Amino acid sequence: TDACIDHHRSLRTGMPEVIYGASKSATQIISIAKALLPHTSPVLVTKVGEDKARTVRDELPTMVYHQAAEMLSAREIQPGSSDHAGTIAVICAGTSDMPIAEEAAVTAESLGNPIARIYDVGIAGIHRLLAHRPLFDKATAIIAVAGMEGALPGVIAGLVSCPVIGVPTSIGYGSSFGGIAALLSMLNSCAPGLAVVNINNGFGAACMAHAINLGRICPLPQK
Amino acid sequence: TDACIDHHRSLRTGMPEVIYGASKSATQIISIAKALLPHTSPVLVTKVGEDKARTVRDELPTMVYHQAAEMLSAREIQPGSSDHAGTIAVICAGTSDMPIAEEAAVTAESLGNPIARIYDVGIAGIHRLLAHRPLFDKATAIIAVAGMEGALPGVIAGLVSCPVIGVPTSIGYGSSFGGIAALLSMLNSCAPGLAVVNINNGFGAACMAHAINLGRICPLPQK
Amino acid sequence: TDACIDHHRSLRTGMPEVIYGASKSATQIISIAKALLPHTSPVLVTKVGEDKARTVRDELPTMVYHQAAEMLSAREIQPGSSDHAGTIAVICAGTSDMPIAEEAAVTAESLGNPIARIYDVGIAGIHRLLAHRPLFDKATAIIAVAGMEGALPGVIAGLVSCPVIGVPTSIGYGSSFGGIAALLSMLNSCAPGLAVVNINNGFGAACMAHAINLGRICPLPQK
Amino acid sequence: TDACIDHHRSLRTGMPEVIYGASKSATQIISIAKALLPHTSPVLVTKVGEDKARTVRDELPTMVYHQAAEMLSAREIQPGSSDHAGTIAVICAGTSDMPIAEEAAVTAESLGNPIARIYDVGIAGIHRLLAHRPLFDKATAIIAVAGMEGALPGVIAGLVSCPVIGVPTSIGYGSSFGGIAALLSMLNSCAPGLAVVNINNGFGAACMAHAINLGRICPLPQK
Amino acid sequence: TDACIDHHRSLRTGMPEVIYGASKSATQIISIAKALLPHTSPVLVTKVGEDKARTVRDELPTMVYHQAAEMLSAREIQPGSSDHAGTIAVICAGTSDMPIAEEAAVTAESLGNPIARIYDVGIAGIHRLLAHRPLFDKATAIIAVAGMEGALPGVIAGLVSCPVIGVPTSIGYGSSFGGIAALLSMLNSCAPGLAVVNINNGFGAACMAHAINLGRICPLPQK
Amino acid sequence: TDACIDHHRSLRTGMPEVIYGASKSATQIISIAKALLPHTSPVLVTKVGEDKARTVRDELPTMVYHQAAEMLSAREIQPGSSDHAGTIAVICAGTSDMPIAEEAAVTAESLGNPIARIYDVGIAGIHRLLAHRPLFDKATAIIAVAGMEGALPGVIAGLVSCPVIGVPTSIGYGSSFGGIAALLSMLNSCAPGLAVVNINNGFGAACMAHAINLGRICPLPQK
Amino acid sequence: TDACIDHHRSLRTGMPEVIYGASKSATQIISIAKALLPHTSPVLVTKVGEDKARTVRDELPTMVYHQAAEMLSAREIQPGSSDHAGTIAVICAGTSDMPIAEEAAVTAESLGNPIARIYDVGIAGIHRLLAHRPLFDKATAIIAVAGMEGALPGVIAGLVSCPVIGVPTSIGYGSSFGGIAALLSMLNSCAPGLAVVNINNGFGAACMAHAINLGRICPLPQK
Amino acid sequence: TDACIDHHRSLRTGMPEVIYGASKSATQIISIAKALLPHTSPVLVTKVGEDKARTVRDELPTMVYHQAAEMLSAREIQPGSSDHAGTIAVICAGTSDMPIAEEAAVTAESLGNPIARIYDVGIAGIHRLLAHRPLFDKATAIIAVAGMEGALPGVIAGLVSCPVIGVPTSIGYGSSFGGIAALLSMLNSCAPGLAVVNINNGFGAACMAHAINLGRICPLPQK
Ligand SMILES: Nc1ncnc2c1ncn2[C@@H]1O[C@H](COP(=O)(O)O)[C@@H](O)[C@H]1O
Ligand SMILES: Nc1ncnc2c1ncn2[C@@H]1O[C@H](COP(=O)(O)O)[C@@H](O)[C@H]1O
Ligand SMILES: Nc1ncnc2c1ncn2[C@@H]1O[C@H](COP(=O)(O)O)[C@@H](O)[C@H]1O
Ligand SMILES: Nc1ncnc2c1ncn2[C@@H]1O[C@H](COP(=O)(O)O)[C@@H](O)[C@H]1O
Ligand SMILES: [Mg+2]
Ligand SMILES: [Mg+2]
Ligand SMILES: [Mg+2]
Ligand SMILES: [Mg+2]
Ligand SMILES: [Mg+2]
Ligand SMILES: [Mg+2]
Ligand SMILES: [Mg+2]
Ligand SMILES: [Mg+2]
Repeated sequence: TDACIDHHRSLRTGMPEVIYGASKSATQIISIAKALLPHTSPVLVTKVGEDKARTVRDELPTMVYHQAAEMLSAREIQPGSSDHAGTIAVICAGTSDMPIAEEAAVTAESLGNPIARIYDVGIAGIHRLLAHRPLFDKATAIIAVAGMEGALPGVIAGLVSCPVIGVPTSIGYGSSFGGIAALLSMLNSCAPGLAVVNINNGFGAACMAHAINLGRICPLPQK
Repeated sequence: TDACIDHHRSLRTGMPEVIYGASKSATQIISIAKALLPHTSPVLVTKVGEDKARTVRDELPTMVYHQAAEMLSAREIQPGSSDHAGTIAVICAGTSDMPIAEEAAVTAESLGNPIARIYDVGIAGIHRLLAHRPLFDKATAIIAVAGMEGALPGVIAGLVSCPVIGVPTSIGYGSSFGGIAALLSMLNSCAPGLAVVNINNGFGAACMAHAINLGRICPLPQK
Repeated sequence: TDACIDHHRSLRTGMPEVIYGASKSATQIISIAKALLPHTSPVLVTKVGEDKARTVRDELPTMVYHQAAEMLSAREIQPGSSDHAGTIAVICAGTSDMPIAEEAAVTAESLGNPIARIYDVGIAGIHRLLAHRPLFDKATAIIAVAGMEGALPGVIAGLVSCPVIGVPTSIGYGSSFGGIAALLSMLNSCAPGLAVVNINNGFGAACMAHAINLGRICPLPQK
Repeated sequence: TDACIDHHRSLRTGMPEVIYGASKSATQIISIAKALLPHTSPVLVTKVGEDKARTVRDELPTMVYHQAAEMLSAREIQPGSSDHAGTIAVICAGTSDMPIAEEAAVTAESLGNPIARIYDVGIAGIHRLLAHRPLFDKATAIIAVAGMEGALPGVIAGLVSCPVIGVPTSIGYGSSFGGIAALLSMLNSCAPGLAVVNINNGFGAACMAHAINLGRICPLPQK
Repeated sequence: TDACIDHHRSLRTGMPEVIYGASKSATQIISIAKALLPHTSPVLVTKVGEDKARTVRDELPTMVYHQAAEMLSAREIQPGSSDHAGTIAVICAGTSDMPIAEEAAVTAESLGNPIARIYDVGIAGIHRLLAHRPLFDKATAIIAVAGMEGALPGVIAGLVSCPVIGVPTSIGYGSSFGGIAALLSMLNSCAPGLAVVNINNGFGAACMAHAINLGRICPLPQK
Repeated sequence: TDACIDHHRSLRTGMPEVIYGASKSATQIISIAKALLPHTSPVLVTKVGEDKARTVRDELPTMVYHQAAEMLSAREIQPGSSDHAGTIAVICAGTSDMPIAEEAAVTAESLGNPIARIYDVGIAGIHRLLAHRPLFDKATAIIAVAGMEGALPGVIAGLVSCPVIGVPTSIGYGSSFGGIAALLSMLNSCAPGLAVVNINNGFGAACMAHAINLGRICPLPQK
Repeated sequence: TDACIDHHRSLRTGMPEVIYGASKSATQIISIAKALLPHTSPVLVTKVGEDKARTVRDELPTMVYHQAAEMLSAREIQPGSSDHAGTIAVICAGTSDMPIAEEAAVTAESLGNPIARIYDVGIAGIHRLLAHRPLFDKATAIIAVAGMEGALPGVIAGLVSCPVIGVPTSIGYGSSFGGIAALLSMLNSCAPGLAVVNINNGFGAACMAHAINLGRICPLPQK
Repeated sequence: TDACIDHHRSLRTGMPEVIYGASKSATQIISIAKALLPHTSPVLVTKVGEDKARTVRDELPTMVYHQAAEMLSAREIQPGSSDHAGTIAVICAGTSDMPIAEEAAVTAESLGNPIARIYDVGIAGIHRLLAHRPLFDKATAIIAVAGMEGALPGVIAGLVSCPVIGVPTSIGYGSSFGGIAALLSMLNSCAPGLAVVNINNGFGAACMAHAINLGRICPLPQK
């Protein structure tokens, strides 16, 4: 392969190099995954459609396809294997936002974090969110996923003390501008305690939540 | 004056021509106001700063200056003079949004509509809004004013059955882009029953609410 | 189903949850529609293409497909069943804007509102609009749909006293930017009495008009 | 002066180099004007504020300041000096658009074209425009100036057979985006026979109209 | 048909209603064309792909398909039938801009104007343009078509005295943003005597040039 | 005061309501601060210029002005008062980014977090950053502040395992677009473990870091 | 062919006209290539997909297809044929950026420049770049290709003394906006010695590097 | 000083750290300049207005103020001190672009490069540029500065074989959008051999030209 793999990443940052599948061919994915499999836990591929995934799995049958998340995984870490690990709540606004919520949930779970999923509780009927408050009040980090007007993460940030990570999605049409409306909404939240990742970046939100959780479990090693 | 005044507007649309003060000199405002005063009720000037207003009032002392709203008015219609008139609730998210909320309130009040003001009840502490629910549940139209993430009008639209008019404000900084974030948020609300006017256009929201109220009081005349 | 349906919405807001079909599979639509059908009037699905609609109707044959509007409906309310209901005029600028105009008309009609359709009367030949004035002068709300330069709603707002709801469409090319030109045009109308919904959001315009009409028929219940 | 003046421009293009005053000091304007005055008719400076103009006139007292247009001129060509010259109509939507309309009118007049001014006839009260139809129906070119929603040029283009030049202005606020709303509106006009110049470019519109008029008076010289 | 055809347009504006084919089905085009054919010269359909055109021609075999221009026409006016008619030069920058240049040329030709085509003479090799100067110096109007950096119309406007109409095209990639780069370039030309139409709007440029030419041939009728 | 203060916020979210000073008068700030002072620790005012701060301090002399941060504070919590508290590193790219870095540092410090400041270590001379690695490797959260190309937070996220919060600043000119370039750069970081707040929002970054630190010290209370 | 080929370009600018393949049919490409082949070295076609390339090669079998670069070439100049020629380093950030890096490498190589390829060394693992420093420290120009946050060229410019040419790619999603994020990042680099070409314009970067190299080999001829 | 100066930069990149004056106080500039003066040649401050410069010079009288360039300099390198140094041509389009052209010229000159200035030769009168061809044909690099439509660098790149560096300026108004129109124009040039720096970044263009020139004089040192 022409790829120059970053084998030290896990040591430096607490999570390994993950394969971004969207702009790679099945051949390229297979070649990079083969290089990672002997050394890395977990091995993850994001943004990989069903057809491409099938071709990869023909070659690498140990990889599991997560359809809702459009991800491949192998060598996942057992969630909650450390008994100090806190739960990450993944909350989404509409049923249409579920693929990105699943990308976040599968990524964080594969990295060993316990997950609580709370889906389809957008602000058009805000009682639905409030009904789940006992569940997300116990989280050590919340990933809040929303498209269209993107107001959900800000409402949540006004209710809790743990850090909230907003993920805008491209769900919507017209002036949603492929997620810009939701992104700007989250960046301009008047409730603090909220930071934001790229549109549709469920993966990145999970890595941020994992880094937060990592800090909770044990002090960082002295280098 | 070089202006070509639209003296029939009140007959056609139920409200007279209003002077947009921002890009006019005091001299121009005085000259147009003088042409309107003998024929029109109310006479209103929007977006007029304190100094310019003083010069206008030196010449036209019957005009009243509404400092918080940055408006001049004369010959206002008595609010609620018709006993069928419904109340318009004007709700704003933060104390910084109050000038635009006041522009809406003063305009609607001058056109004869009773007003309920509910200010500084943004979504960072959503219990503040819910505490006023009995008040805005009785409104025939709600004007919801918000800057930054602009989520308030959508939350309100999910709670009420009357029409909601969203007014984005330019309050905020950075990626609020002078009100674009709030505007897009409102346009993409997943709660329906909400329509939007221009950034900082409290005046336009009041005219829309007035048109809605007008329809409630009496059927439109057959032409 | 994973969806968390908002069964109280009709009580709160005067209209039930509506299924946004664009980003859902036929399976998801069927599952949500099945949950709504026993409780809700009407049941509506918006932005659903012909093929997806056929799959839904194979399972739920009571649903009717409105091809021009790209909508599915069931359990519609009889238009004008209340004898105080006012007529909503749906006006569009060009023949290309008709799908969005139909989305508005079918939504409002299913919610029980009488509709007057006035199509292809854009400002390039403004006499066509003026010829229908007696019809739209009697409306209690006007939905004005236009792409390209989006000037029609502003021209109408300068002629009538009832509230006007502008719907920008994505019709056009080049610097129409998928409806941005029309959207901005409507937001900046110098004729007041006009509020705007998202690009191509015929559904949202109908909900706003329905909320306006609801207010006209009967006072809101005291809560 | 460091400027490299284009003394052949009048021969090539039918109008001389004109000084863009906005980003030049009074000293620079004086130095370029002095170089042009012996050779050129007319000598024009655009976008020059009152104070800068006064300093220029202290040195060059033959120059006349047109306050409404924010222009300086000298050696103007007598309007209509050729008896084949057609009239250019300059029409604007609101009183706030008058400075740009005047920039167009003064420029075209200085180049020898007869002008008809029709101001403050925007689409909020469209009967005002229609009342002047006999006047602009006789024009050989129409310059239509509008800010905010910028609909006026398109409405005019639907009524006349002569070419229409649209000039968007920066009048407005919020989502008018300094004239972008008006510019896009004009570019997307569904009425053809309309072309557009830059925001606030009254000067450029006048040059285009002059070039059109030039063509009408006499065939272009064979080169 | 649901279309409301503007049969007076030719009388008012000197050119008939033209069918915008991009967002219409073959059935809709046929129905509108049938309504126009008995009354109108010429009958034109713009932006119609090869397949759709074939279906239309199956029903209306008198219509001619212009492949390079993606247009259908019937009842064209004989070019130069009036002996006062001036020639319109259509100039384009690259071979990729030819479809839009052809849209302009076919439209103007069908309306009776003689055309001179000068193609692939962009500014990367400016001697190619200068070599054709005798040809375009005789034009009564020039249509200049360019994508990418869009500099050609401004260079031409600096060389000639007749009016120049710039047509930005969507040719390019990356930061050409579908023609925005070329559009902005043309709007900001420092050479005056240039006005601009929408991106890819060869049709609109031809209508503008036709209106200019119309003015040259004969004075406008008194109304 | 017209403000409706959210006195429960500290209980819900672990930090009190903070006064956004930019769009408020000194009078408004004083009135809100007076309402907060008896109940809240700390009391903070952000984005308040020197003159406005002086007027506030004339009335409320217990408030301290942090000039570099443009903040007022009172009743700060002693940094590191809990012996489990981790250190927050505040890193900035250039000397011009220091005001926003200070806003973050002062906010986090006032909330009781120990701070390590590492300033002027941008990527143009990347050895400067690497030299401080022992210091920031021990942090429990890193706030990385950068304007212009905004690359610093991504480079840091590639080196560490703790969560990184990126703060774009408006430092730069031309196509930095007031911080958009830096914002987009951070949102698109190919190094995960990074989330972003609004342009110039040092305050929001500090709140996010504080929420992360809070989680480390003690488990959240069961509600 | 309708194309007007610029046969003097090589003499003027040191490189011949190159065929931009994206918006041309195979027929057009063949016709232009046939006109160039007898006179020009090299003959290059950029942005040509596999299918179109096959059709061209059926007619012109001497042309070679470079799959990774999506280019056709013939009559390439022998790299390094002049013994003064310096090496151009082509560096890219991720495996997804390789097609654009190859477009740059193949173009520069065909023009006779020796190339060093250093791929997949983005800033998420910056040690990978530093490991190749001896290689790119000897280059006479560096082409640095990156999508997403686009930080690589700036980091390189801070390390070397030779000129760096940044090429943003459209790799990424969401707020990468098709390469805008990377483009802005490169334009705002705080490390000088870096200039930028269009998104995905590997071809243009190679031409710039070639022009730089040309200057190194021999002084320009006196004209 | 809080600044962390990069004293190795000259060794690595061939030019020292330069002080960006726009967002720094006079005090900050003085403190950094004092740290640089004993070690660095030249010492440069860019984007520093007249008043701030005077305060700096009161403290550091050896610094020279270049008013047209808004720069301070000390310890300049003698231009052309190496007898292999090539001349850099600095060309600008209009008199208003001269400050940015001067920023480029003074920077490059201070770094020891001989400069040829060719000003006010924009494309509206293209013969002015062609008249200077012998001068810029001998340059080893050309810096081409233009605002408004920004076409000049592309025209030059079509004429010469040396590398051209385009500098867009913010000169213009309306849709020039502070230099975006010029920037996009240059990025999309159809003439290759052109790369671009940030809007108004005369400094960056000079550094790029210096790096090109450096390469010409002597091979890079082996590291
Ligand atoms: N065409 C439409 N445009 C905007 N919102 C819609 C549309 N159709 C349905 N909706 C709303 O979108 C929400 C559906 O979100 P979801 O949970 O993703 O189905 C519902 O609450 C509807 O009120
Ligand atoms: N290619 C085109 N670009 C812009 N406008 C066009 C084009 N072709 C036709 N038109 C105009 O678009 C209008 C058609 O609108 P519609 O009612 O949607 O068919 C007509 O009035 C034409 O003048
Ligand atoms: N604050 C405002 N925002 C938007 N439109 C306004 C405002 N105030 C007045 N107007 C409208 O702007 C028009 C005034 O245009 P002008 O001729 O420039 O005075 C009037 O027709 C008013 O209806
Ligand atoms: N990939 C490319 N990106 C930008 N410009 C290109 C590219 N390939 C070729 N060109 C230039 O585009 C011009 C071709 O324009 P055309 O006449 O449309 O073929 C040539 O002058 C080339 O210099
Ligand atoms: Mg739902
Ligand atoms: Mg508040
Ligand atoms: Mg029509
Ligand atoms: Mg007016
Ligand atoms: Mg060509
Ligand atoms: Mg520094
Ligand atoms: Mg990689
Ligand atoms: Mg000049």
